Amino acid sequence: MLVNGEYKDTIAIMDRGFQYGDGLFETIEVRQNIPIFLEQHLRRLSNDSQRLYLPKLDLELLCSEIKQLCQNAGNAVLKIIITRGSGGRGYRQPDDIQPTRILSLHPFPDYPQRYYNDGIVARICNTRLGLNPVLAGMKHLNRLEQVLARAEWQDSEIQEGIMLNINQYVIEGTMTNLFYVKNGELFTASLNLCGIAGILKHWIFEQMSVKEHDFFLSDLQQADEIFVCNSVIGIWGVQKIEQQHFSIGEITKHLQHTLECEKQKQVAYAIK
Amino acid sequence: MLVNGEYKDTIAIMDRGFQYGDGLFETIEVRQNIPIFLEQHLRRLSNDSQRLYLPKLDLELLCSEIKQLCQNAGNAVLKIIITRGSGGRGYRQPDDIQPTRILSLHPFPDYPQRYYNDGIVARICNTRLGLNPVLAGMKHLNRLEQVLARAEWQDSEIQEGIMLNINQYVIEGTMTNLFYVKNGELFTASLNLCGIAGILKHWIFEQMSVKEHDFFLSDLQQADEIFVCNSVIGIWGVQKIEQQHFSIGEITKHLQHTLECEKQKQVAYAIK
Repeated sequence: MLVNGEYKDTIAIMDRGFQYGDGLFETIEVRQNIPIFLEQHLRRLSNDSQRLYLPKLDLELLCSEIKQLCQNAGNAVLKIIITRGSGGRGYRQPDDIQPTRILSLHPFPDYPQRYYNDGIVARICNTRLGLNPVLAGMKHLNRLEQVLARAEWQDSEIQEGIMLNINQYVIEGTMTNLFYVKNGELFTASLNLCGIAGILKHWIFEQMSVKEHDFFLSDLQQADEIFVCNSVIGIWGVQKIEQQHFSIGEITKHLQHTLECEKQKQVAYAIK
Repeated sequence: MLVNGEYKDTIAIMDRGFQYGDGLFETIEVRQNIPIFLEQHLRRLSNDSQRLYLPKLDLELLCSEIKQLCQNAGNAVLKIIITRGSGGRGYRQPDDIQPTRILSLHPFPDYPQRYYNDGIVARICNTRLGLNPVLAGMKHLNRLEQVLARAEWQDSEIQEGIMLNINQYVIEGTMTNLFYVKNGELFTASLNLCGIAGILKHWIFEQMSVKEHDFFLSDLQQADEIFVCNSVIGIWGVQKIEQQHFSIGEITKHLQHTLECEKQKQVAYAIK
């Protein structure tokens, strides 16, 4: 792990990332030493930094450290954390903010290929997402809702939990964005009040027309296809939610294929 | 600072307190080496631990460490942080949770006596509190709302910011609970959907009858008295919100006096 350019695995207790969750993170697939969708991740990190009034990111420095860390990573997960740095006790931010940047490499999870081919099993979480437009969409370090939702099940046959918000709208998975297809149209939740706007969500919007809207569980249950996505897993079809079965349809397969091509293209381009 | 009984000032980057804000904290006044309202703080910590599905606190161990750290503290602030400990990447909690406990001492802030005698100046924050019944009331480590609200002003003549929730109800200060008096009755916000249920809030409920209800800024503006409270500042009357002046009234003064007596009693009892 690299903390402000130094190899270490600890952080100051007074770091505001620890004291208040005062920071952001990104989770990036690394394939053959190449961070996939790096530009998109850094753009989101920059945008969200502005929303949290963090100092402007030094992207050049960050990129050189990413390169340093990933040069022999093979297939891995790169996590970047940016915090508001150390400061005294109290919510007031220090006058001179010196952000902390942490880069860490983690093993790429060995998900079975069948999750990709046949789809996953999901459940409906009891934990509801709260509503907060100021924080909605951001990948910030205040993640207790996801922690509580993920703590609801131990069954390893269930790969994801679907979260509703306190208004009972379906929003996303604990670690994924969620899409569904109905009559050939693609839908996903609007994330104005809660949820995390994932990089892959954004990428899917670039591939085809998507309707962002508020929908209930009953809408989801009538879907022709359902899939979830994030930067590490890519796209997984959903074959079952609670007791109900779904087919892995053509739009899901098409997006999976296009995404795989895009990743291969990024690797080939970077290596060349 | 004491981390799991050892003196150090760093924490593992993989600690879930840092990764996800997966933990709780308490901020305690220490007067003449005595932690004030310790029993109440530990009770809240225990209750909130249960709400976060953290393992049962070892209160005996915690108390002995508190005693160790406070024995020469004089007047100070003691902060206790409990996290879910280290775990792998991902929201799923480890099978074997080994919580991290951190005790730290901080200088007691030198607030001018006039805040206490004459009241403080407050403003209305633009940042709204989100709604989330699962997390409401807890003093957990997900505190970005308070950080963003406190970042709204630099003016040192303003001591507190009053926060509304997204439904425009008045809830609390960025670091305090808020009460108001109207026609001899005491009111405060209900904290079912947001806010932090402070130790002093609870103590005030034990002193006199309080009506918990939803109220708007216009209700607050017609108050006879307003005060804010927390474990470190005690009780401060509010003399001004934005451009409007308020009197520091008898109920505020009475509670300030009773609280001071209670603290002196606790110190005297502990020293004896």
